[in-house]
Amino acid sequence: MSAPRFGHVGPADLALFTDRYELTMMQGYHETDHDPLATFSVYFRSLPSDRGYAVAAGLEQVLAALEELAFGDDALAFLAEQEFDDDFLAELESFSFTGEIRALPEGTLVFPNEPVLEVTAPLFEAQLLETLVLNQVGYQTLVATKAARMADVVARHGDDQDLVDFGSRRAHGVDAGLKAARAAYVGGFEGTSNVLAGERFGVPTYGTMAHSWVQSFETERASFEAFADSYGDDAIYLVDTYDTVTGAERAVAVADERDVRLGGVRLDSGDLVALSKRVAEIVGDAGVVVSSSVDEFFIRTFFDDGGVATAFGPGTALTTSKDAPSSGVVYKLTAVERDGALEPSMKLSPGKVTYPGQKETYRVERDGSFVRDVLATREESIEGRPLLETVVEDGSLVADPPTLSEARERTRSQLESLPERYRRVSDPDTYEVRISDGLEALERRTKRDRIDRER
Amino acid sequence: MSAPRFGHVGPADLALFTDRYELTMMQGYHETDHDPLATFSVYFRSLPSDRGYAVAAGLEQVLAALEELAFGDDALAFLAEQEFDDDFLAELESFSFTGEIRALPEGTLVFPNEPVLEVTAPLFEAQLLETLVLNQVGYQTLVATKAARMADVVARHGDDQDLVDFGSRRAHGVDAGLKAARAAYVGGFEGTSNVLAGERFGVPTYGTMAHSWVQSFETERASFEAFADSYGDDAIYLVDTYDTVTGAERAVAVADERDVRLGGVRLDSGDLVALSKRVAEIVGDAGVVVSSSVDEFFIRTFFDDGGVATAFGPGTALTTSKDAPSSGVVYKLTAVERDGALEPSMKLSPGKVTYPGQKETYRVERDGSFVRDVLATREESIEGRPLLETVVEDGSLVADPPTLSEARERTRSQLESLPERYRRVSDPDTYEVRISDGLEALERRTKRDRIDRER
Repeated sequence: MSAPRFGHVGPADLALFTDRYELTMMQGYHETDHDPLATFSVYFRSLPSDRGYAVAAGLEQVLAALEELAFGDDALAFLAEQEFDDDFLAELESFSFTGEIRALPEGTLVFPNEPVLEVTAPLFEAQLLETLVLNQVGYQTLVATKAARMADVVARHGDDQDLVDFGSRRAHGVDAGLKAARAAYVGGFEGTSNVLAGERFGVPTYGTMAHSWVQSFETERASFEAFADSYGDDAIYLVDTYDTVTGAERAVAVADERDVRLGGVRLDSGDLVALSKRVAEIVGDAGVVVSSSVDEFFIRTFFDDGGVATAFGPGTALTTSKDAPSSGVVYKLTAVERDGALEPSMKLSPGKVTYPGQKETYRVERDGSFVRDVLATREESIEGRPLLETVVEDGSLVADPPTLSEARERTRSQLESLPERYRRVSDPDTYEVRISDGLEALERRTKRDRIDRER
Repeated sequence: MSAPRFGHVGPADLALFTDRYELTMMQGYHETDHDPLATFSVYFRSLPSDRGYAVAAGLEQVLAALEELAFGDDALAFLAEQEFDDDFLAELESFSFTGEIRALPEGTLVFPNEPVLEVTAPLFEAQLLETLVLNQVGYQTLVATKAARMADVVARHGDDQDLVDFGSRRAHGVDAGLKAARAAYVGGFEGTSNVLAGERFGVPTYGTMAHSWVQSFETERASFEAFADSYGDDAIYLVDTYDTVTGAERAVAVADERDVRLGGVRLDSGDLVALSKRVAEIVGDAGVVVSSSVDEFFIRTFFDDGGVATAFGPGTALTTSKDAPSSGVVYKLTAVERDGALEPSMKLSPGKVTYPGQKETYRVERDGSFVRDVLATREESIEGRPLLETVVEDGSLVADPPTLSEARERTRSQLESLPERYRRVSDPDTYEVRISDGLEALERRTKRDRIDRER
């Protein structure tokens, strides 16, 4: 009998987590002895609809991957089967990243065309990273952004309600479940239901009972009694299995009878605003957790309509970034070595603009508020605070990656500095990303040179 | 300096890839000595918009996970830190799955409320699986369905164009990139750009060049010459870096000059219908690959408007299932042991119907066409072909999982049997899932019994 395969992706597999064209190109570069230094820029072409900002996340995974990237025997054997040449495979055997990474610290607010990170390395090396970098940074940025939107609605309209990620089951695979929990924490969540995210990243984990607990006992009351006996004080009871209001009354009665302090109740279906108000009266000081179909729009409406909650458990909408499940994140060649110097490069494909050259983003602030960003060449000196930090030099980490708590605090404090009109969850104003005079001139010159050269 | 962590999920981590409430409940079951046999059913409450069917996928991963699920020392140490009890942790130390799985073979068309799989096992064991099973089956089913829609548009309106997954970079993490390639193959794709999917699952891999290849050389012409020198016959050239029509002409000229056979050209931007027609004339018998913003709606319109292509490379829309990035897949307790026998169970939460009991789905066919399905209790004998197969008994695999090719062939042949009105990519008719008399009676009885019991 053939054994089923889960399809794990471990450290030894990251080098093959790439699009085949990267390897095809790398073999071609190798064969034609073409290995100039190159800069690739990772940025979003635009923000998904209703997004006034994005929250950069996923850098730690890029840095970890750089240290792990290597072609082991199994990988090389597979590539040999795929008809890659021996000479190229010998080159891969000694692959390691020797270049530079400049990046936004995680938790930095980022806007279209601004580099989330820039890789400068021999073309052969930099080419390999594309797929993995986009995969990790793109997804975590989507989720951190979605989480920040919910956290921001709570901060502005709520009463310090906790947000806990309940979405692992609807995330796209195990890596997504784990990384969503991480990114949601960066975006401002208190924690996650995902136990592995606690073990791996130290994200606080939460979880009480599902409907199956209640159903598996003879009656709801018996199930609550068993839970009170097991967990004593501060337990939270899911009360909507049969009838929400009766369930809440039972939770109070059982806690009373067993002489334990009621932690709270969770609502997972029905008219959540109306039920939450009714249930809040029943449970008094205990918590009310709301966990069905929660997203930033739901939370805002819930508050507007007078719903009462002490915590929310967003799931699907968070981990799939449901209203915007993809971002236009790209990894584009912006400079390549020619005659010993980096020369700016750009493609001319219609509708897909790339600003050429190595860049820096400056953030202009006034009275603690963000006024605008300026996207510039790396050589220019511009008003404002430069945002990119050098994190890898000569292939080695040169700065501690920020802790998750630091990233989370950065998101929070940057959101506070972003004027409210850019933070609206629907139809936000567009934050200005000014193109510096130097970069505009460079773009015109690069384009003209290219058109001339292709004649 | 602290080392950055990628956050891999390996075989030893699967047991912690669960929502904390599963472990909270398991500890409670253990403490209260409550471990009845239970059946959980995995099914979709509804199909996402514009979907007339879903394609079941991901079973192999569930089976692999069942064999791997175990709590190792690291996992137990973490749970001890999280304040789980020693006695419970000792029980976890010997965890293994001893139950039964009945499931649809991958590639089976499935409709709302029909079990994709049913787990029958001691409650303690079955409870743990929920998060991981939903995570794997839900996502792969979404992608296999999306892929099948594209393959079906090609089968009905096209000219046998190949479909290749180019979406790893926009997939939600590495597991999603890998599993999307697998699921797309089940859905009818020819292959993927993801190299690891080739190594791990034998999915054919494809890939030629990106814009960075073209930009990294002095001129587009020089880049094509280098590629022709490296790859000779049948190479495919990306022609839209600077000007698509000129690029296509250059690819032809370079192939001619180097005396190699042109494989084809790839278009990745611009007015793809118009450009494809123009480019097809230029390249003659060589291929035209179209790879920007491709999904089933794009392909249909592309054909309607007279576009010319030999292959499509869908990316984001495929791997994020962009128009429907989540499904309402659930894992619900439908039966629980009471006095030595399985008793049907259901919750009564408004708007979230669960049919109680162990079930079977029968597919009624006439003249090779699917007429309707009938959802029934497992005991009933109904017209039609039963769809669920027993794949695990007493914790052991009792049947070889179908190969990917078999799953892919099943999708193809079942789609052919599904009348066209259910396969429309927009606004399809609703395929009938009839509830058997036996199941309807059981639902009424279970509901009434529950209401009586909760009084």
